[in-house]
Amino acid sequence: MVDFIRKCVNDYGFRGAVLGVSGGIDSAVVLGLLIRALDRDRILALILPERDSSKRSLRDAQRVCKHFGVVPQVYSITGALRALGAYKLFPPAFLIPEKLKQIYARNRWNRYEDPYIMDLLNEGDELFLKGLAYYRVKHRVRMCKLYMEAEKRKYCVVGTTNRTEQLLGLYVKWGDDSVDIEPIMHLYKVEVYEMAKYLGVPTYIIEKAPTPDLVPGIVDEEAFGLTYAEIDSILMDLEKGIEREGPAVERIKKIITSTKLRELKCLHLERGE
Amino acid sequence: MVDFIRKCVNDYGFRGAVLGVSGGIDSAVVLGLLIRALDRDRILALILPERDSSKRSLRDAQRVCKHFGVVPQVYSITGALRALGAYKLFPPAFLIPEKLKQIYARNRWNRYEDPYIMDLLNEGDELFLKGLAYYRVKHRVRMCKLYMEAEKRKYCVVGTTNRTEQLLGLYVKWGDDSVDIEPIMHLYKVEVYEMAKYLGVPTYIIEKAPTPDLVPGIVDEEAFGLTYAEIDSILMDLEKGIEREGPAVERIKKIITSTKLRELKCLHLERGE
Repeated sequence: MVDFIRKCVNDYGFRGAVLGVSGGIDSAVVLGLLIRALDRDRILALILPERDSSKRSLRDAQRVCKHFGVVPQVYSITGALRALGAYKLFPPAFLIPEKLKQIYARNRWNRYEDPYIMDLLNEGDELFLKGLAYYRVKHRVRMCKLYMEAEKRKYCVVGTTNRTEQLLGLYVKWGDDSVDIEPIMHLYKVEVYEMAKYLGVPTYIIEKAPTPDLVPGIVDEEAFGLTYAEIDSILMDLEKGIEREGPAVERIKKIITSTKLRELKCLHLERGE
Repeated sequence: MVDFIRKCVNDYGFRGAVLGVSGGIDSAVVLGLLIRALDRDRILALILPERDSSKRSLRDAQRVCKHFGVVPQVYSITGALRALGAYKLFPPAFLIPEKLKQIYARNRWNRYEDPYIMDLLNEGDELFLKGLAYYRVKHRVRMCKLYMEAEKRKYCVVGTTNRTEQLLGLYVKWGDDSVDIEPIMHLYKVEVYEMAKYLGVPTYIIEKAPTPDLVPGIVDEEAFGLTYAEIDSILMDLEKGIEREGPAVERIKKIITSTKLRELKCLHLERGE
């Protein structure tokens, strides 16, 4: 992976790399790879919080940058989100304690039996759809900022999507999936954990529950209804062609077939069609 | 193309379509196709001007919507761009006449012998690179807004990229290239003109010089250094395998090989690599 990063940067003539650091394990692992691949003065770590980000994410993002010896730039995207009308889709939360925000967001998300599938299919009533638009625009605006800072410097934008997320649609189309290079996209989430230990990612990052931190309080494994250990064991067996049965396998298969909308990108006619 | 739009909307369960209308010929043609494919109350035409957009683009966009019987929503993205720091990359132009803005922008763009190639390669000094970051973030922020409005309604986002633009890299990566469906991506620009006449696009759209309107005063054909008639004649011959020579052919080939960075998307390792 370190060689891959170096080769990409050299082949395309980039002067360095930009990475969005979230405080989660994936971006921590990618940062750990970047500092092994490039000099630190060629790495721009951006932390991009917004009104509804968890305070812990910001603190962890700052701590992990410090841990790896990189000085991050913190830039709030709240102003841009407000100007786009994103906060009209979710009630104001000024001075509301984080716990209450989480309860509100979870109640709004859990109005359907299987909100993750509803999300993948863009289904649901107006309130639910507004919730989807509200969280997705965040990653897209982050992408805008990452590229703006990258292009000013001729840096490449480095992604943090892993294989489990990619297969199960746990990404925002034209958001966190839209980067120049993806150094950990071939790794299942359980392998990202192993890599984190190998690279010396601090335990306060490794041990917390993974969350996109896009909607207060919603964490990955609750959204899937399965643990990453269960998911990846099934995904690896599916990849090897090993037949398995049971409700967990059915659920994974249902999720995979429901990612159709997320994978819909620039569908077009061919010449002569 | 009308069938293609209808089929996409139906196959993916969309309730309608969102289109960014710029006042140019490509979005006018796509709007002309959309009103033939879908009921007008299922079409959301968004006009997304910003501080440095030409006044004529806004007026033409409004006129073409009216012409096709669609009521557009106009939403300025200036606030979002300012919040992201985009206008720090280009000097303030408040109360400056449009002609002067154009002269400034053209002088800044033309500091290199071949700025279009420099652009494709992300080359140039700090001032030039800032200019690239400045114009590209506009289309990306537009994409954010188009998707936010689309996802609220379960609409699809319809693109306006044509084949000539796609081959020559005249698009912003993760900007105007990032949509759900592309109804005219198989058409060369000269074919878009024919289609415009067929669909009854007004002559004030057809006859003006095509421009992305991202940097004041920069028009497509000047950036390429060739007319669309010349370009498409060469591209069509290249497609058919007809050998041609001369400086125009060399230039087209050079442009095509320089789009490497624009085509760099999510480069990643394969499992076992």
